[in-house]
Amino acid sequence: MSKVTDKIILGIDPGTVIMGFGLIHIKGSEIKLIELDVIKLDTDDDHTLRLQKIFAAVTTIVKKHKPDEFAIEAPFFGKNVQSMLKLGRAQGVAMAAALNFDVPIFEYSPKKIKLSITGNGNAAKEQVAAMLQQILKFTNTHKHLDATDALAVAVCHHFQGKSQNATGKKTYKNWSAFLTDNPDRKG
Amino acid sequence: MSKVTDKIILGIDPGTVIMGFGLIHIKGSEIKLIELDVIKLDTDDDHTLRLQKIFAAVTTIVKKHKPDEFAIEAPFFGKNVQSMLKLGRAQGVAMAAALNFDVPIFEYSPKKIKLSITGNGNAAKEQVAAMLQQILKFTNTHKHLDATDALAVAVCHHFQGKSQNATGKKTYKNWSAFLTDNPDRKG
Repeated sequence: MSKVTDKIILGIDPGTVIMGFGLIHIKGSEIKLIELDVIKLDTDDDHTLRLQKIFAAVTTIVKKHKPDEFAIEAPFFGKNVQSMLKLGRAQGVAMAAALNFDVPIFEYSPKKIKLSITGNGNAAKEQVAAMLQQILKFTNTHKHLDATDALAVAVCHHFQGKSQNATGKKTYKNWSAFLTDNPDRKG
Repeated sequence: MSKVTDKIILGIDPGTVIMGFGLIHIKGSEIKLIELDVIKLDTDDDHTLRLQKIFAAVTTIVKKHKPDEFAIEAPFFGKNVQSMLKLGRAQGVAMAAALNFDVPIFEYSPKKIKLSITGNGNAAKEQVAAMLQQILKFTNTHKHLDATDALAVAVCHHFQGKSQNATGKKTYKNWSAFLTDNPDRKG
């Protein structure tokens, strides 16, 4: 008898002004929304202080919900170099907060996320949000709209995991277990 | 009677292939080299695993040496956007490892660092290394050369602190104390 899947996935969309996050609980074939919210960073704060706030916020979320896996969007490379460095730092501290508690990290391109949720890699943000509402049965609000990107990557990761399970691939309880089985994991 | 300065500064130069670090001990007017080294990241590892290694390495250094302050170079913005994102993430996890232990972070531009060490904002890397050897009385090796950028930012930060002391400004024992006195600190 195979064990029923029971895990929590945290999706994060760490911008340097607003950080969105979404938590879902997977139990067997059920998928439930735990939390969907944003943390607004004070634009009066300097960059380092905002990084500290992102690190503290993600640490709080990880401690409270104990996610089994962490999913993040690999952003487009269309922005200018200075904004990419700042975005990279914001992502880095958010990832470090997960790594600090041995939560493995998974990364998906925007196209892959849209394709996974809507079946169309070029879907509009609104289409993705509408599909997420349908899957997770929630009513969208303005606050939620800012966080749907984070939720989308968590749900995308779940769908990836599901198809991996369907083809007999493992899911991993933690980073060490994942690495043990994936010594040659490439980026 | 004013208290004699006694603090440890950690300088980090987190690349995505080699991470250099330098630790100096300031006691009164004395400045001593504690450690200067590099951590080579396995290019076979994927990006996320390298970030985890950077986070683990900086955490180990912070736990072992308990630095009072953390200094990092604000890089040039001449690279392409993808490499800036990766560099930003590497810096982000290194910064998070310091923030995790309440070590305040200071950032200096490459020009400011060169100016501070050599008196010339356009000095070559070799001139900076030679001046550091003179100030800290060590013989350079190939390994050391990879780490002198990290040492340079730590020494630069010390020189900034010295001039702040000279003009009556405070130094801060920890991040909270710093923020309490700098609620409006801007980037």
